Amino acid sequence: MLLIQNGMLITMDGPAQAIADGVVLADGPRIVYAGPRQDAPPAQGAQVLDAKGGLIMPGLINCHAHTAMTLVRGLADDLPLAQWLNEHIFPVEAKLDGQAVHWGTMLGCLEMIRGGVTCFNDMYLFAHDVGRAVERSGLRAVIGEVLYDFPSPCYGPLENGFKVCAELIERYKDHPRLKGAVVTHALYTCSRPLMERAGRLAADAGVDLVIHLAETAVENELVLEKWGQRPYEVMEDLGLCGPNLLIDHAVHLSDAEIRRAAAAGVRVAHCPESNMKLASGVMPLRRMLAAGLTVGLATDGCASNNNLDMFEEMDSCAKLCKVSTMDPTAAPAAQVLALATSQAGAAMGMAGQIGVLKAGALADVIVIDTDQPHLTPMYNPVSHLVYAARAADVMHTVCHGQVLMQDRQLTTIDQDEVLRNFRRCADALTGGKLL
Amino acid sequence: MLLIQNGMLITMDGPAQAIADGVVLADGPRIVYAGPRQDAPPAQGAQVLDAKGGLIMPGLINCHAHTAMTLVRGLADDLPLAQWLNEHIFPVEAKLDGQAVHWGTMLGCLEMIRGGVTCFNDMYLFAHDVGRAVERSGLRAVIGEVLYDFPSPCYGPLENGFKVCAELIERYKDHPRLKGAVVTHALYTCSRPLMERAGRLAADAGVDLVIHLAETAVENELVLEKWGQRPYEVMEDLGLCGPNLLIDHAVHLSDAEIRRAAAAGVRVAHCPESNMKLASGVMPLRRMLAAGLTVGLATDGCASNNNLDMFEEMDSCAKLCKVSTMDPTAAPAAQVLALATSQAGAAMGMAGQIGVLKAGALADVIVIDTDQPHLTPMYNPVSHLVYAARAADVMHTVCHGQVLMQDRQLTTIDQDEVLRNFRRCADALTGGKLL
Repeated sequence: MLLIQNGMLITMDGPAQAIADGVVLADGPRIVYAGPRQDAPPAQGAQVLDAKGGLIMPGLINCHAHTAMTLVRGLADDLPLAQWLNEHIFPVEAKLDGQAVHWGTMLGCLEMIRGGVTCFNDMYLFAHDVGRAVERSGLRAVIGEVLYDFPSPCYGPLENGFKVCAELIERYKDHPRLKGAVVTHALYTCSRPLMERAGRLAADAGVDLVIHLAETAVENELVLEKWGQRPYEVMEDLGLCGPNLLIDHAVHLSDAEIRRAAAAGVRVAHCPESNMKLASGVMPLRRMLAAGLTVGLATDGCASNNNLDMFEEMDSCAKLCKVSTMDPTAAPAAQVLALATSQAGAAMGMAGQIGVLKAGALADVIVIDTDQPHLTPMYNPVSHLVYAARAADVMHTVCHGQVLMQDRQLTTIDQDEVLRNFRRCADALTGGKLL
Repeated sequence: MLLIQNGMLITMDGPAQAIADGVVLADGPRIVYAGPRQDAPPAQGAQVLDAKGGLIMPGLINCHAHTAMTLVRGLADDLPLAQWLNEHIFPVEAKLDGQAVHWGTMLGCLEMIRGGVTCFNDMYLFAHDVGRAVERSGLRAVIGEVLYDFPSPCYGPLENGFKVCAELIERYKDHPRLKGAVVTHALYTCSRPLMERAGRLAADAGVDLVIHLAETAVENELVLEKWGQRPYEVMEDLGLCGPNLLIDHAVHLSDAEIRRAAAAGVRVAHCPESNMKLASGVMPLRRMLAAGLTVGLATDGCASNNNLDMFEEMDSCAKLCKVSTMDPTAAPAAQVLALATSQAGAAMGMAGQIGVLKAGALADVIVIDTDQPHLTPMYNPVSHLVYAARAADVMHTVCHGQVLMQDRQLTTIDQDEVLRNFRRCADALTGGKLL
């Protein structure tokens, strides 16, 4: 039993609001109680995690990350997309190996644990090495090996890619924290046979199909040229737009496509900072939410963000939505907090299981240290979480009932070991520092 | 003598680039050397500040803040501008007194020292109490008492406002770190006689004239209705557009106005996060810089941001410029870093004196702890400062040659005392927490 007490509680089970003196009680991986202290069941002998007057809330959920791209964080910025990819990112990725991806993912897990992220959706290469890292870290994740038509630094020709994908799904079939997914890169890099086979595999295995879709206007044009239809229409024609489809970015969906996606139960991962930095455009968040589309927030990879910080992402999400609609009431704090917790849980296909603190849900919980100048005064904790708090304010991180960080000290990861191995891999990949 | 050593050095004296092993040597308030360690003059007996392998750089400069609005941080968000001001901010401000402003400013100074800000431009009420706080904190600031036509909670009728303003300028005439300014609220709240008199006072005293200008489209309309001209045209007709004019926001300047402002030597404080949150619009940063306008970055007050964090502001500035121009090469990291350092120094009217590390400049220096997962690997320190670093990464803060924070411990401010007094004042103003 784990008892988290002595703090304000935000359950995200219903409207975002705080309970002045709340507790969370977990038995193994599941929450048995989340609510006011005075109504809590007895918890004799439980391990106690002291919130020290801070905020107890669901762990944040990062719905789209290329986690191991920590390896190329800050390697190249401020460039046109094609030049950035072709001259900087792809040449480095061609030299990737499982070791590098493993340590790159470990560093990302470390950063996410420190920043209060307890679950993420990973799309990258060498997914088995991603999986090993996530297993070690104690985090929760859906992971996938990227499939595309050209040879992969991981699996070589595509046929092997499907093998890796099937192995991954099998390997994590009964894992308590990890799950495989079928991950297709994009319609401009994947053929029709690839997409059809990927769709069948995901449906047969009961896992998510994930794809970058409608990220840029150029992508829409390329797809129109190659497939004769807009990206979302292609997915519809392939019969792939259903509740197991997770679309990353979705910046350039039309209103009609948004309505149809909502009706089909499609889910979207919103990456506002990456979309801003690469000048991809502004996802029509408000229209999507009005249409009833399920949207979760995400950082994307460190090549285009350049961190895995969901606090900054919430802040940017709210502000970008307001300025792009010219309406200060758009994307209010409570709604944005939901995009990183309860709604993100739904976007991950785990609605009600993660991103929410209630009996029966998984015990993915974080505690925020609010005794900080930049969080003073405290009129409205929900406002503070979106507009003023930072990743560095996270004090405790719990995933699946296990304490991964206590008083800012990691329990599952040896930070020095990770940094040492990570730097060795990054140096080998890129030739070391620019200085 | 103060010697800052054992780190990478970014001087911002010329293009933003790092010196692998650099030092800064200060004698009293001024830098005597900033450059590679091997060329440094001897520094026997100097106080040594160890950068521990981190980044040594100019202190960040916040060109527009209502610092004491820490008191209303998170009190009301996500509202239409008029409702936010009239129902939430103004009623609280009507109850302000010097004590509250003093402690509100102290908390803001504390937050800025922690976040690596060494100089700011303050626009608020009870400016004498602002000044007392800044003096105590050890920070550098230009401060002003807001003038407008209606009675002020500080000085009552306007006539007294000019008296306070003149006293303030006199009081800090010879102060090493503080300087007064003539601060007019906006053209929709100030009459022609007020503006004319303010302009004369600023010119006669040799201080800056500061004003909120062209912040929103509604403001442009209001001013057109009241004055018969656009805001910038009114300022030109009043003869106020010269090198001592600092315009806050400037979101809705036309291209022609931008050209004329650049030619006149007018300076601009850019507040991207506040402009996003209030849905004021996107300042045409790229066009302004292309026109040669002097622009400094700023947070605005905590009512509309909701922090005084210049690291987040740099990140948002770069990303907003890219997505609003749909060009990923716009606002590259080195340019944005300059907007918060060397260019901000120019925007504060202290070009070459602050925001730059070189012999003869003032010793306003910060050190960033880069041994952090989210700053690993380190290919390009300038990229990291804009896109990955956080306020919490600041390790040491030095202003005017005085160490204000060492190893994240404040030396001039007693944090517990400030928090205690601040909370008392905030509770008295707002009736305490919402919970």
